[in-house]
Amino acid sequence: MPEPHAPAVILLSGGLDSATVLALANMQGFACHALTVDYGQRHRAELDAAVDVARALGARAHRIIAVDLTGFGGSALTDRAIAVPEAPTQGIPLTYVPARNTIMLSLALAWAEVLDAGDLFIGVNALDYSGYPDCRPEYIAGYERMANLATRAAVEGRSMKIHAPLQHLTKAQIVARGSELGVDFALTVSCYQADASGAACGRCDACRLRSKGFAETGIADPTRYQPRP
Amino acid sequence: MPEPHAPAVILLSGGLDSATVLALANMQGFACHALTVDYGQRHRAELDAAVDVARALGARAHRIIAVDLTGFGGSALTDRAIAVPEAPTQGIPLTYVPARNTIMLSLALAWAEVLDAGDLFIGVNALDYSGYPDCRPEYIAGYERMANLATRAAVEGRSMKIHAPLQHLTKAQIVARGSELGVDFALTVSCYQADASGAACGRCDACRLRSKGFAETGIADPTRYQPRP
Repeated sequence: MPEPHAPAVILLSGGLDSATVLALANMQGFACHALTVDYGQRHRAELDAAVDVARALGARAHRIIAVDLTGFGGSALTDRAIAVPEAPTQGIPLTYVPARNTIMLSLALAWAEVLDAGDLFIGVNALDYSGYPDCRPEYIAGYERMANLATRAAVEGRSMKIHAPLQHLTKAQIVARGSELGVDFALTVSCYQADASGAACGRCDACRLRSKGFAETGIADPTRYQPRP
Repeated sequence: MPEPHAPAVILLSGGLDSATVLALANMQGFACHALTVDYGQRHRAELDAAVDVARALGARAHRIIAVDLTGFGGSALTDRAIAVPEAPTQGIPLTYVPARNTIMLSLALAWAEVLDAGDLFIGVNALDYSGYPDCRPEYIAGYERMANLATRAAVEGRSMKIHAPLQHLTKAQIVARGSELGVDFALTVSCYQADASGAACGRCDACRLRSKGFAETGIADPTRYQPRP
């Protein structure tokens, strides 16, 4: 357990996974500083969802920081000319955003340094996930090693821990854990092509994984879907 | 030597060091994609300098990407309430920007992934430098190891190299090398409190290191200074 009210930075996308992570960090007694990155993602509704989730779970502070990755493109999430796949694909899918988790963890690391926090939380998952390279446990371990060379704290002998508490859970286990912790999943948005109100498409990889998670637990799925044409 | 015209991403601040790095990468035959990060730095003139340097050295492409670190603060370069020190200080100075190089390398990594580039260049220096943790050789090596776990290329078995060619040079050696390669140092801005025209204060750490570099080589110093009050 941390010192009571030790500050921690929690990456909060507005989706189901990171909301559960915020609830877990809260439960562990951290003073949770939620960080949302507006990287130009297609599904803008997740940014509004992040605001609602941070408020509902009582985050100590919440920042949204903008870094426009649409200029680099290379992903269905940041380049409107690339369609979001609606059927399972082989290999790393088109929704992979180059270096996204590395950029988000680096922004979290900056805030952690300013807060003198030694704990970062990220909701990556390596079971029911889309096969992104920057969700793999070996990547998270490598990031932690790098972070422990990067900062003032590192030079002064204090360490930085990257917590990825969902890493080895199935989506159903995440839904169950979040539910126990009182996460209101109706506030969260997972869909890669959610409309402005947060209603989900029901067809993308993120929708499929989320829906399967609820189905397997038997917990009622509060996801709002777009009307079918 | 790289494949002829292999793409590389070069972090270009607009200062003397990164201009020399761009010239070196050019000389090595890379197709140079220069990346400048507007992180809310106090010395805005370095952004204009980066544009001039990228053009003068014939970069294949140049992007300026904005990520506003002033919301985190914690540095004299991003918080106007913290004055830039004008005398040498002990330890890590107030001009250290938390996780700055980690953020900049991560943005460079994103662009490299999209370009399918396996080479990143950064102008960090560990001799005539300000004692920043993220300029140390062990940090750069740690970043490279992490990058080789982070990306699509990593999964597919291609490697990423972080080049830090100035790491073990003195500032005088950097000036001499840049000069040989035809860098027009008059275009560059190093000063942490340069005015809008790029004129330097002559008193901050960056000014002192730069001036010493020119003095030790005997190469004429083209730096423009602000009029003394």
